[in-house]
Amino acid sequence: MTADETRPGEGVEKPQPEYVEHITKKSDDFSQWYTDVVRKAELADYTPVRGCMVIRPYGFALWENIRDALDGMIKATGHSNMYFPLLIPESLFLKEAEHVEGFAPEVAWVTHGGDKKLEERLAIRPTSETIIGTLYKKWIRSHRDLPVLINQWANVMRWEMRTRLFLRTAEFLWQEGHTFHATDQETIEEVDKMLECYRSLAEDWLAMPVFKGQKTEAEKFAGANYTMSIEALMSDGKALQSGTSHHLGQNFTRAYDITYADKENQRSYPYGTSWGLSTRVIGGLIMCHGDEAGLIMPPRVAPIQVVIIPIYRGDEQKAIVDAAVAQLKAGLGGLRVHVDDRDEKPGYKYNDWELRGVPLRVEIGPRDIEAGQAVVVDRIDREKTPVPIGELPARLTDMLERFHVRLFDRAVAIRESFTVEVETRADLDAAYSDGKQALAHGSWCGDGECEAEIQATTHGVTIRGIVSNEASGVCAGCGKPGKHTVYWARAY
Amino acid sequence: MTADETRPGEGVEKPQPEYVEHITKKSDDFSQWYTDVVRKAELADYTPVRGCMVIRPYGFALWENIRDALDGMIKATGHSNMYFPLLIPESLFLKEAEHVEGFAPEVAWVTHGGDKKLEERLAIRPTSETIIGTLYKKWIRSHRDLPVLINQWANVMRWEMRTRLFLRTAEFLWQEGHTFHATDQETIEEVDKMLECYRSLAEDWLAMPVFKGQKTEAEKFAGANYTMSIEALMSDGKALQSGTSHHLGQNFTRAYDITYADKENQRSYPYGTSWGLSTRVIGGLIMCHGDEAGLIMPPRVAPIQVVIIPIYRGDEQKAIVDAAVAQLKAGLGGLRVHVDDRDEKPGYKYNDWELRGVPLRVEIGPRDIEAGQAVVVDRIDREKTPVPIGELPARLTDMLERFHVRLFDRAVAIRESFTVEVETRADLDAAYSDGKQALAHGSWCGDGECEAEIQATTHGVTIRGIVSNEASGVCAGCGKPGKHTVYWARAY
Repeated sequence: MTADETRPGEGVEKPQPEYVEHITKKSDDFSQWYTDVVRKAELADYTPVRGCMVIRPYGFALWENIRDALDGMIKATGHSNMYFPLLIPESLFLKEAEHVEGFAPEVAWVTHGGDKKLEERLAIRPTSETIIGTLYKKWIRSHRDLPVLINQWANVMRWEMRTRLFLRTAEFLWQEGHTFHATDQETIEEVDKMLECYRSLAEDWLAMPVFKGQKTEAEKFAGANYTMSIEALMSDGKALQSGTSHHLGQNFTRAYDITYADKENQRSYPYGTSWGLSTRVIGGLIMCHGDEAGLIMPPRVAPIQVVIIPIYRGDEQKAIVDAAVAQLKAGLGGLRVHVDDRDEKPGYKYNDWELRGVPLRVEIGPRDIEAGQAVVVDRIDREKTPVPIGELPARLTDMLERFHVRLFDRAVAIRESFTVEVETRADLDAAYSDGKQALAHGSWCGDGECEAEIQATTHGVTIRGIVSNEASGVCAGCGKPGKHTVYWARAY
Repeated sequence: MTADETRPGEGVEKPQPEYVEHITKKSDDFSQWYTDVVRKAELADYTPVRGCMVIRPYGFALWENIRDALDGMIKATGHSNMYFPLLIPESLFLKEAEHVEGFAPEVAWVTHGGDKKLEERLAIRPTSETIIGTLYKKWIRSHRDLPVLINQWANVMRWEMRTRLFLRTAEFLWQEGHTFHATDQETIEEVDKMLECYRSLAEDWLAMPVFKGQKTEAEKFAGANYTMSIEALMSDGKALQSGTSHHLGQNFTRAYDITYADKENQRSYPYGTSWGLSTRVIGGLIMCHGDEAGLIMPPRVAPIQVVIIPIYRGDEQKAIVDAAVAQLKAGLGGLRVHVDDRDEKPGYKYNDWELRGVPLRVEIGPRDIEAGQAVVVDRIDREKTPVPIGELPARLTDMLERFHVRLFDRAVAIRESFTVEVETRADLDAAYSDGKQALAHGSWCGDGECEAEIQATTHGVTIRGIVSNEASGVCAGCGKPGKHTVYWARAY
């Protein structure tokens, strides 16, 4: 029974070339590698609709897991889901001046319903502050109606000329939270609370380390007093803004004339926040964790956590292996397990599931069954661990938990490898010379002109976040007194 | 402690008039009653956006429960979720002739992105067959790629002049399933399988009895060979189409030139189905179950299954009652329970939760605590049942299960009260004379002109479904030989 058993790929530590050559090498062309991985792992693809992608079953299952994790946090912090109209009449859209200026160039306009020209054109929502403000004007009357803590999961549209799957598409899926409060202090706390949910999603679920920071005036949300974000560093050294939380103050409540009777029965404007996280984070986890073989899925959101590959030759072996696999799978009820019973060679399957980033692969053949074990192969380093079959449920659960930690630590190490302290303009320029990437940590004067000048002369290095309102030295951009400590990087 | 306890509403079997008078009487004006209930129970509301509604937290929580129940069935039957673009270029939309003719008058068109006029205008999807066909043309190559079993949860837009919350809105939320198969037989089975999921959702989750039937040629989906539907009868005697499952044959695969290499390596067109169920079913369960006091929520999808009302006077009683309520709630972990601790009179709360249709209300005051019990009040008939506190977890679970059965049986009885057998035209006319409503069961000749004539002369009585392709007598419409057995009704 074991004599003619072969295990393709035995001793081969690298994936089979015939399959992986279809993916551009990550070290050659990161951008093309990214697109290849997204398309060939069947996460998403381009469509004939300019700027719009299709999210395929494997990608959507990933999004469902991310959505469910974040939705749990949103509800646990007291928010309720709602659904607001897709279309916003132009007159409502125009009420908050900064907001319009920021979003108008990106709006897709509906002008006809059936054969009829509409009296007023309708914006497909780029975000929903304006329609939500309009509706809550009639629902908020008294201090008893506050706080309002709501969220919606929806598609939004921002007209883009350039499409990058997940990262920059005209249509994307997201959640947008919107809240109204009686006091500014509550609003400030809400902004921080939801930013912390985003940090937890990124780090505790996606194994993607992030830092929290405040965006500069140039980078804040159109209509906000200030914007906080979580920023992740991709494995090519560029940053990705992965979730934002906005302090709107009374900007929108004044623009939409939302008032309430406070405890002294005086009319007051409530304070507002909004916060959003989108399918963009999927791009983040791909670029953060992926390697030459393809994706590496963070196990807590992986659509498939464990793939079982039965190995056999001939019907007699197949019957024995299938029986063992069925029994094994039945014992793994708490995990997301897939048995690959396709009529393909094991080597093909190994490469396919490595491309798709499944954290753990279990290989099981007649020789293993005779030895009462299976071989677990790890996606990060392809280490092989023989595990007694009876111990697999507990061991796989444990290995997945450790996989999360290892993936996170690996991403921290990648980020650290790009992190540089900059004290002078020479430091800053050196960090980004010759197309190099870096996450530069240093002092900044707070002047928008200095910020713009750095961006212009370094091919797009921007301040990703203000992480402290103290500075340890002079501005690394212009040499004037430092006011803030910031991170610079080129960004997606 | 019990001396000064009062239980407002004790012995009062009807809700307090001061609250319920805000809802139009159901028996006076069913249509206005419906709108009042939807708005005052805060399920949904109108918006300044023509034809578009806002779904409020209580309504959206209901939709989430319905969605999760159906999503579970869709996945259990082997389908995967995806996400397709919102916008469909006009040229793609135009390829299936019947489909275009059916949907073009209802399409909202995007003509501008930012300041720029688009080269080709884009339809906001009224349904996604056309974009899905376009994409699957490149993904389906071999018989190994079949069947394709996919689904999306999405917003769609069908321009409507008239808005009725949930029932008829320009934008609505739904799921749309789309499948491709190698054989027509598989397609026929798929249509039936998903129709059965819809029946199960309606009856087993929403307690709403339905019948399955085939739509006539006049009522089928634009582009389908045939359409099956589930139809429910509302408590005013009008029918509601609540979910549809379409046999598309090769209509779309030919129009979009989707072919695959079959096992003999011949190019063949796959067969297709599509099937959808929308937020419209929320309108259905309201009109099916609601009464003069408001909603009655089917317990398996109710956002709140049990509301606990603490009853007390003064701080001393409050402390005792609060402690008992906290302990009680902790023991009800498996149920969706809300404690109404608002600073309002119990009578106000009773009416409020009756309006919102919470199946079971638990009243608990010092006198109850002393007796070691609480009083459970049923939403259907307001029957009061004292239950020992220790038995509440098991008893409430049991009462909710029985509530579902009673609600279903009640709806069946309502439907039966409207059902009439019609053998002649005189029977049919009598059933609908003087604005009466009926669910008329009888034979039909199968002729579209007869169908149209009945509709024209009876103020909108239509064939809701062909339930058999045999007939027991002559056509109740025209007297010619009967071919099918059908249900007639006026419909939403």
